[in-house]
Amino acid sequence: MQIDPARHSNADNYKILTNVIVPRPIAWVTSVDADGLVNLAPFSFFNAVGSDPLFLVVSVGSRDDGQPKDTARNIRTGGDFVVNLVTEELLTAMNVSAADFPADESELIPAQVHAAPSVHVKSPRLAEAQVSLECRLHQTLALGPNTLCIGEVVMFHIADHLMGPRLHVENFAPIGRLGSPSMYCRTTDRFDLPRLSYAGWLKRGR
Amino acid sequence: MQIDPARHSNADNYKILTNVIVPRPIAWVTSVDADGLVNLAPFSFFNAVGSDPLFLVVSVGSRDDGQPKDTARNIRTGGDFVVNLVTEELLTAMNVSAADFPADESELIPAQVHAAPSVHVKSPRLAEAQVSLECRLHQTLALGPNTLCIGEVVMFHIADHLMGPRLHVENFAPIGRLGSPSMYCRTTDRFDLPRLSYAGWLKRGR
Repeated sequence: MQIDPARHSNADNYKILTNVIVPRPIAWVTSVDADGLVNLAPFSFFNAVGSDPLFLVVSVGSRDDGQPKDTARNIRTGGDFVVNLVTEELLTAMNVSAADFPADESELIPAQVHAAPSVHVKSPRLAEAQVSLECRLHQTLALGPNTLCIGEVVMFHIADHLMGPRLHVENFAPIGRLGSPSMYCRTTDRFDLPRLSYAGWLKRGR
Repeated sequence: MQIDPARHSNADNYKILTNVIVPRPIAWVTSVDADGLVNLAPFSFFNAVGSDPLFLVVSVGSRDDGQPKDTARNIRTGGDFVVNLVTEELLTAMNVSAADFPADESELIPAQVHAAPSVHVKSPRLAEAQVSLECRLHQTLALGPNTLCIGEVVMFHIADHLMGPRLHVENFAPIGRLGSPSMYCRTTDRFDLPRLSYAGWLKRGR
């Protein structure tokens, strides 16, 4: 079946896009406004995009009134943010923080989570998160009503119990985002698929 | 535990980044070179980033010799590409296509998959994929050795059996990418977490 987005509404197109580009990792972003108020909100238009230096992107939509969301405004004015990852014990808190709280109300209190100081950036990390990535803003890019925030990761915070030998992160199982309106998945059904080399491929006789 | 990427090697930093930003969706990208040769390769630095118009990003790394990978070169010169999604029956084919084949050898033959014509772009889609997204290149951005390709989705191809009422995509379960060196996850352990509104939150008594 072919679906041409030019013939459908934005709402339909968004639904299809978010139902097929799955599973999406979730950036639970902490940022601060000019008055020091900490904002917390989840975004699934998020991924790593570079390894030297370490880059990631978070795309932040607009509010219903067309204004940038608090997170986009804070990142642009403050120049940094922290990406916290969402594991199962933090799901309820994440969902509370996703509600449309007014800009002058921090989501930390209703979500019952706490800010902990970062090392290299002003935005705090979440004390309860198993993994947090401090990010310095590299560049923003307007993509329609979305603000693509490109951040450079300048510090990893990783719970001790996740660290194996040689900086290997083990048994970390954050939740993934699926399609509309509100589906998620666990990442516990795992398997290993060793990568092939061209040389190995030739040796196998093609 | 704190890990400062400034104190570690690129290889270590890449390992940590790809172990914690999970699960990542997989773009199995078809593109064509100037001679019409079809290239096929998987990338997990990929996600949706905009809904009006429909934007996605695929970040393509460099080869070991520092040159851009075939996919990045083809997208820049050809101006379009197709993102195919990877479901379980296509895993072996995806893994074969990830091997480092020479630029003059199409991955389609060893992977035993087939090109089907696209509607709006020159790059073909994969006939075997349950979902394919035709993309027109919007912009590229250099991020260190990575090329961030921002594409606009101009056509969805979705297998008939996945389409439910009102353009809802149902029971689509592509594979997710986890950490190094070669871990993946299924997306079959799903749950629904209805979103809260601020008004609903106030009504519940906070």
